[in-house]
Amino acid sequence: MNSFGKIFRVSIFGESHGQVVGVTIDGCPAGMPVDIAEISEQLERRRSGKKGTTPRKESDVPEIMSGVFNGFTTGAPITLVTRNSDTRSADYEESPFIPRPGHADFTARVKYGGFSDFRGGGHFSGRLTWGLVVAGYFARKIIFPASVSAKLISAGGNSDIEKAISIAEARQETIGGIVECRIDGLPVGLGEPFFMSAESVLSSMVFSIPAIRGIEFGTGFAAASMFGSDHNDSISDSSGSTDTNHSGGINGGITNGNQIVFRIAVKPASSTGVEQNTIDLRNNKRTTIRVRGRHDTLIALRVPVILEAVAAIAFADLLMIDRGINFTSDRYI
Amino acid sequence: MNSFGKIFRVSIFGESHGQVVGVTIDGCPAGMPVDIAEISEQLERRRSGKKGTTPRKESDVPEIMSGVFNGFTTGAPITLVTRNSDTRSADYEESPFIPRPGHADFTARVKYGGFSDFRGGGHFSGRLTWGLVVAGYFARKIIFPASVSAKLISAGGNSDIEKAISIAEARQETIGGIVECRIDGLPVGLGEPFFMSAESVLSSMVFSIPAIRGIEFGTGFAAASMFGSDHNDSISDSSGSTDTNHSGGINGGITNGNQIVFRIAVKPASSTGVEQNTIDLRNNKRTTIRVRGRHDTLIALRVPVILEAVAAIAFADLLMIDRGINFTSDRYI
Amino acid sequence: MNSFGKIFRVSIFGESHGQVVGVTIDGCPAGMPVDIAEISEQLERRRSGKKGTTPRKESDVPEIMSGVFNGFTTGAPITLVTRNSDTRSADYEESPFIPRPGHADFTARVKYGGFSDFRGGGHFSGRLTWGLVVAGYFARKIIFPASVSAKLISAGGNSDIEKAISIAEARQETIGGIVECRIDGLPVGLGEPFFMSAESVLSSMVFSIPAIRGIEFGTGFAAASMFGSDHNDSISDSSGSTDTNHSGGINGGITNGNQIVFRIAVKPASSTGVEQNTIDLRNNKRTTIRVRGRHDTLIALRVPVILEAVAAIAFADLLMIDRGINFTSDRYI
Amino acid sequence: MNSFGKIFRVSIFGESHGQVVGVTIDGCPAGMPVDIAEISEQLERRRSGKKGTTPRKESDVPEIMSGVFNGFTTGAPITLVTRNSDTRSADYEESPFIPRPGHADFTARVKYGGFSDFRGGGHFSGRLTWGLVVAGYFARKIIFPASVSAKLISAGGNSDIEKAISIAEARQETIGGIVECRIDGLPVGLGEPFFMSAESVLSSMVFSIPAIRGIEFGTGFAAASMFGSDHNDSISDSSGSTDTNHSGGINGGITNGNQIVFRIAVKPASSTGVEQNTIDLRNNKRTTIRVRGRHDTLIALRVPVILEAVAAIAFADLLMIDRGINFTSDRYI
Repeated sequence: MNSFGKIFRVSIFGESHGQVVGVTIDGCPAGMPVDIAEISEQLERRRSGKKGTTPRKESDVPEIMSGVFNGFTTGAPITLVTRNSDTRSADYEESPFIPRPGHADFTARVKYGGFSDFRGGGHFSGRLTWGLVVAGYFARKIIFPASVSAKLISAGGNSDIEKAISIAEARQETIGGIVECRIDGLPVGLGEPFFMSAESVLSSMVFSIPAIRGIEFGTGFAAASMFGSDHNDSISDSSGSTDTNHSGGINGGITNGNQIVFRIAVKPASSTGVEQNTIDLRNNKRTTIRVRGRHDTLIALRVPVILEAVAAIAFADLLMIDRGINFTSDRYI
Repeated sequence: MNSFGKIFRVSIFGESHGQVVGVTIDGCPAGMPVDIAEISEQLERRRSGKKGTTPRKESDVPEIMSGVFNGFTTGAPITLVTRNSDTRSADYEESPFIPRPGHADFTARVKYGGFSDFRGGGHFSGRLTWGLVVAGYFARKIIFPASVSAKLISAGGNSDIEKAISIAEARQETIGGIVECRIDGLPVGLGEPFFMSAESVLSSMVFSIPAIRGIEFGTGFAAASMFGSDHNDSISDSSGSTDTNHSGGINGGITNGNQIVFRIAVKPASSTGVEQNTIDLRNNKRTTIRVRGRHDTLIALRVPVILEAVAAIAFADLLMIDRGINFTSDRYI
Repeated sequence: MNSFGKIFRVSIFGESHGQVVGVTIDGCPAGMPVDIAEISEQLERRRSGKKGTTPRKESDVPEIMSGVFNGFTTGAPITLVTRNSDTRSADYEESPFIPRPGHADFTARVKYGGFSDFRGGGHFSGRLTWGLVVAGYFARKIIFPASVSAKLISAGGNSDIEKAISIAEARQETIGGIVECRIDGLPVGLGEPFFMSAESVLSSMVFSIPAIRGIEFGTGFAAASMFGSDHNDSISDSSGSTDTNHSGGINGGITNGNQIVFRIAVKPASSTGVEQNTIDLRNNKRTTIRVRGRHDTLIALRVPVILEAVAAIAFADLLMIDRGINFTSDRYI
Repeated sequence: MNSFGKIFRVSIFGESHGQVVGVTIDGCPAGMPVDIAEISEQLERRRSGKKGTTPRKESDVPEIMSGVFNGFTTGAPITLVTRNSDTRSADYEESPFIPRPGHADFTARVKYGGFSDFRGGGHFSGRLTWGLVVAGYFARKIIFPASVSAKLISAGGNSDIEKAISIAEARQETIGGIVECRIDGLPVGLGEPFFMSAESVLSSMVFSIPAIRGIEFGTGFAAASMFGSDHNDSISDSSGSTDTNHSGGINGGITNGNQIVFRIAVKPASSTGVEQNTIDLRNNKRTTIRVRGRHDTLIALRVPVILEAVAAIAFADLLMIDRGINFTSDRYI
């Protein structure tokens, strides 16, 4: 089920070491200006090559294949792809028989009867998030003037993130992190009870990003230790503004007009430089593996722009459910 | 969007103080024996009336309206309802103009232009979870022999739950809690990349339950502080068993055959006995409210059976996507 | 898959000889006035008891179970049911082993492994269309000021319908008919390419009605015999009015602002008074059956109101996709 | 809504004169061999260039972008595209202001606020059916050993199709036709009541093909003139074989194991060589248009392979709903 959304629908395809990764956005309103340079700018935030990320130089150049005419969206499905290039498949040659711990190698092999493309994780690769960032570009325009912003607030349990990276690098290790996302400017009323609550839609999208282990809204897990009257947010005016924001901007699954706040936990990347135990499926014997491919010390560094994208996608869909498939057209004409 | 699921579809309807709350289960395999006493047993675990829960005596008796013939499911939609009875609407008479902090009163009012049934939260009431527990009864049969079990592991930040309740009751307060859920016996391979990952589907369902503030899988938020080689679960045999289970039984969004483990944070119930600040929408002036309705000191006490139900529902759908709409029939014939 | 629609969602449940037949309408805008007498009026048009229809006196009284408060829709799911009463089950007692030709008896038995409720066709009964008519009541309000009107234009190949009935009754036979539907007042632009074209959505709904064998839009099958320049409808002004309407008001799957016109073929009811050949599944021997249950000589007499309802439902969904889930609220406040 | 299907999902994208037309197939079982030459063979049947079709030489070469590894499907989304080449856009330069009768020019312009790609019909072009034929290749493998076969049985009301073409060509006209489709070998039990009846799913797909005006199953419209006992198909053995097949192999929306038979009406192509009346949207004055682009005299000639494809797609989805997303894998391993 590589498609998300009811009205604003995002479908991703491709493999880490195949021809392309790509995305189709269906249900995007007509008349939105499309600037490939702006898309590339957002993709740049997702790129590797910086301290703490893999030195793999991914080809991220987006190519528009459909849905854009004379620089504007047409209302037809928008497909963009990027060609894969710097793919050292040799690094991964043993994968089909020796599943890497923490990866989808084993589960994908069983699920697809040995036919999945195992190279670099294939379709399960974090590389597929390229399409999410591209779709996020369009989604942000839809939710405008609302704006979404995410940042890494700790890594390896440390708020000094540079330091955390250095420690991990010295051990050829990887570390996880916590990313916080805030959305300002959404109207009251988005979210559909029961099963498309704002939290349901957001969390569903968030757990589509590889390596996410948890999500919490507003005060989150800490709410479990609070008294009710401390946790409740008093409403201070008829627009719904609240004095506090323990609920993270959502009541009854519906946006309440205050800032949306949530945090996610990103696990340490599974590919580390350390030797690990696993099994050889050819003989059912234990063996060890040292992942030779390049890896990200702190994969969470690349997550904020992806998280912003999926949050924008989630609310773009909820907004279009509320306002209709063509609601934004006027703004752009 | 009061329906969940792709193949095994659950729809809920009703209001806290309306005629009924109910549920329709569509896509349930034919030939499953239905025992109303067993359903009632599960509903009993959700009931109030015990220490820490509201003294409201809810009428929970399930009435089968369709889809069952001669004691077996027929393949047609199964609808069950329960009549509402002990509903002291007078307790709630001010609600339409004075939104209760933490409730959906304000958001529902705005979203539905003042037409929502506000009595006791109306359609946003936790009472709607009655239908989830009923649907869970059928879902459990579908995932059998897998079994799901949830328990409250802390309340108000305290692992001594009796004590936590006593402290809160003394203050006329409410407290939250952490509920942990474990599922044993699921096959390898459930979950559909990308947007129906096992975590996506589970979290989407979980955040349909009112009052949930967070979810984490396996090691969860703690994973963000671990090194990759510590977090990775070594595979120890060709069935996919792992030495540890930091991933909570899911890799790449797909079940790996190990125990599924996740925890959720339940906020303290918004209705407390303490006076709280709010706004009077008639004059946009601040006022105070003391919720007169009966309330649950520790709403999380009622959550385990609901959490088990939604987990079973989520996996019933994933299993039926994998095995087909009629796959279980043989077992019961 | 007993649910239809993306935003305006209609789910039906129940059996011919079970407790109830019912319908849930989810995604209906809040603030619509609900008049049970008006619903009954539309149901009256579907009722039997007139010349050409079965003398079975169906209990059609609608009971509102949820989603309506103080006489208005609330935005929550609306559930209505009607209790079954005049159900002479004895008439059908041999059904499980001796499938009636033309009915779903055989297919349902195989599909559901013998567990389907066979009494009077069970869930496959035309009685389920009760819920469609009820949902149509709400859908008509949504598409208002557009209006939909259907009529029976021929029966048994005869435009004199009274005469056709008399001939059939004399032979204890059943006959089919052609029903034409026209919709005025829809805006330009409804229908979503490719797979939710106006014709796709309409036909999908229409073939949910039991006994429908064909559908044609505008000139329909006759178009296959026309020249292109004769078939094309010239546009005569900038509102899109056309001089002719061979296309039936739809171009490229999208409404063009002219009258929507389509016709459907209704087969003769399968239950006739004539002895027919079938098989006894207990011994795989041929046998004969004379359906003892009451039957409709001309089932198509009851179809117009159902056809209007499903057409309204189809366009209500397309309109809400276009305008958003709450677009109509203002009109009723 | 450019996606079809619940489990076997087909999404199309592209424009007539854009970069590509393409298709993504999601939910296709892993392990199916993919032979590009076989795909091209089916595409060849859809091609123009033969008597009665446009001389436009379309580039139909399929390029696999994802989802296939070592010659087999992987379980990940399969994307194929073909580059557009022989696109004489100049032929269409007046389109945005002077809508061609019978085309989607006017409706698309209104729906998308003037932003749709009008060149050659843009996304509404019959060229998009390229992707349906490609998806049909995969769908046929899924329903195997069932087989689907369609043929043109009349054109312009004439069963001598060569002659009909000659008459039309002499007048620079276009003509329509009737295409019949038969499917053998499907099991009993496909189709989901009520809204995914076999006829609902088939007709929904069929009306996604441009230029279709009607569909009828089995005896179709003629059924409306028959007596019930003549129309009923007697069951002759316990496998469900019937002596006649007036129902076209479907009872109660569910396949009954007999041959599926249906016919569709294809209208004459809207682009003819004859001058036609229309409107100039710049000044709201009537004008005439002679479509200069190349056109198909008998577009229905190209429909059989498309109809086979959509029929296979419809049943592939119903079969996978019944049997599960991975049910066919074993056959290919």
